[in-house]
Amino acid sequence: MIGTGAVGGYYGARLAAAGHPLQFLARSDAEVLRRDGLRVRSGPGPDVTLAPGSFGVVTDPHEAAPADVVLVALKSTANAALPDLLGPLAGPGTTVVVLQNGLGVDEVAAAAAPRSTILAGLCFICAQRERPGVVEHLDYGAITLAARTADGSPAGTTPRLEAVAADFTAAGVEVGLRPDLLAARWQKLMWNIPYNGLSVVLDATTAELSADPAARALVERLMDEVSAAADAQGHPVGADFGARMRANTEAMVPYAPSMKLDHDAGRPMEVAAIYEVPVRVAAQVGAPMPTVAALADQLRFLDARSLRRADGTSPATRS
Amino acid sequence: MIGTGAVGGYYGARLAAAGHPLQFLARSDAEVLRRDGLRVRSGPGPDVTLAPGSFGVVTDPHEAAPADVVLVALKSTANAALPDLLGPLAGPGTTVVVLQNGLGVDEVAAAAAPRSTILAGLCFICAQRERPGVVEHLDYGAITLAARTADGSPAGTTPRLEAVAADFTAAGVEVGLRPDLLAARWQKLMWNIPYNGLSVVLDATTAELSADPAARALVERLMDEVSAAADAQGHPVGADFGARMRANTEAMVPYAPSMKLDHDAGRPMEVAAIYEVPVRVAAQVGAPMPTVAALADQLRFLDARSLRRADGTSPATRS
Repeated sequence: MIGTGAVGGYYGARLAAAGHPLQFLARSDAEVLRRDGLRVRSGPGPDVTLAPGSFGVVTDPHEAAPADVVLVALKSTANAALPDLLGPLAGPGTTVVVLQNGLGVDEVAAAAAPRSTILAGLCFICAQRERPGVVEHLDYGAITLAARTADGSPAGTTPRLEAVAADFTAAGVEVGLRPDLLAARWQKLMWNIPYNGLSVVLDATTAELSADPAARALVERLMDEVSAAADAQGHPVGADFGARMRANTEAMVPYAPSMKLDHDAGRPMEVAAIYEVPVRVAAQVGAPMPTVAALADQLRFLDARSLRRADGTSPATRS
Repeated sequence: MIGTGAVGGYYGARLAAAGHPLQFLARSDAEVLRRDGLRVRSGPGPDVTLAPGSFGVVTDPHEAAPADVVLVALKSTANAALPDLLGPLAGPGTTVVVLQNGLGVDEVAAAAAPRSTILAGLCFICAQRERPGVVEHLDYGAITLAARTADGSPAGTTPRLEAVAADFTAAGVEVGLRPDLLAARWQKLMWNIPYNGLSVVLDATTAELSADPAARALVERLMDEVSAAADAQGHPVGADFGARMRANTEAMVPYAPSMKLDHDAGRPMEVAAIYEVPVRVAAQVGAPMPTVAALADQLRFLDARSLRRADGTSPATRS
């Protein structure tokens, strides 16, 4: 498991607790994980506690034992490091599961692991890394798996996909299988694009966005653009998918999306994978997304300002 | 002069100081204006001080003396009150000068004063009402005048337009005359739409927006949509108008637009006149403005939340 944040910690702990000989590729958390182990405090499900030494921790991919399956749970904002991290782990027999949001991330993994099989694992989970070695699991937790093909055509259900699905299922994770990876990614963007971005730009929870007529109208137009782009690319999300997603979101408890948690904590936002790559792809297939592009530019502005402020290279001026 | 805010106070003081028998139609400021007079503290120009009693102050339009010219310096957010305020003042011989931003405001005035001549007066000014009776004039101050026609066709230069222009000029106000009212309004929107809205949504000055590549790209797309809508309506702003305006803005000192001052002070924003009416008009003439519409919805959301919070009817929850 590459990454020890909320996603890597949660799914890694579940898989290890189910008996898989799991190794984490960690950075700053390595020492704490070796000394104290890993704990998932779960609201909806049972807690998971991994004792120190019951799982592997390495900081250099060259130190890792050979693995059948490598799971990528870095934030996509760190993907520039993926060739160095994933490359040494990924051979011809390896299955790489990309547990990242957005579009184009499977291609980044494929370029870093050209001889391996790439699966996408879309995580539907509310979780936070509270501190090194401790993950708080708030809600949900299902994973949607799909296999990548070089030309984007639907791969259907492959033996590797089923094998990975069986591992997750045995670890107590709810799994969905999708024949069409790109359709699955567009479906996830149908939620992420409106609610992640607007929650940041408007400093609002999903409940506030759902309660306001103007915000609801904007959410709907954003979803319409995403849906039209998916159609144009030949990977439709389904006719009433957006309406169902809005209704589900209205029924949720007030919720701050992960991008908002990242931004509030001064971490970089996944603007490229969730916004800029989809905007580029949509334009290429003749279905431009101007409303999404506006949100992308706003987020890019806020992200740059936030990182400047965190650097201390510029004073935090507010008019 | 209907209104005693920054615009009404500044131009009213200049006209009165030039010898015009000016009356203010005031609300809460009336008593202070009668007791203490009116003062403009000007950075770029000479200060203006009107002694108490040297100008009229009424709170009811029925108490006002008959006037040749009525100037409307309400914020457009208060335009629901315009029929009651303007109607009693506006006869067949009256010239009404609409000192408001946005699109459709001349039509609101025309409906409230159907027998009068309507002129638009577009104010290029940085000024704030510091407190009742005191206006701080920070920069600029020119006014662009144009005459309204019922069908929107260019009116050219009319005798009334020239008479009002002469009065402003004699009062020390720089005046421009435009033959085409709607082209002049679209030109002003070319600045107001990007910089007003983005300064609020991104909590940024014009300088911050000009310094960031993503914000600059977004400003340019917003301007392109506005320009295309003006073209489609038959009132073009001119080919290189947006580029020149961006260059001018980059050369300005960091500046918080009036909509940002309004929002920061908890006052309603002119979302309808500056955004929603232009978006509707653009769609009607076949040049939809999706990027502008996104900003409109964001501002409508922020405006509604701000007014709710000011009301105290809902707690100021932030996630």
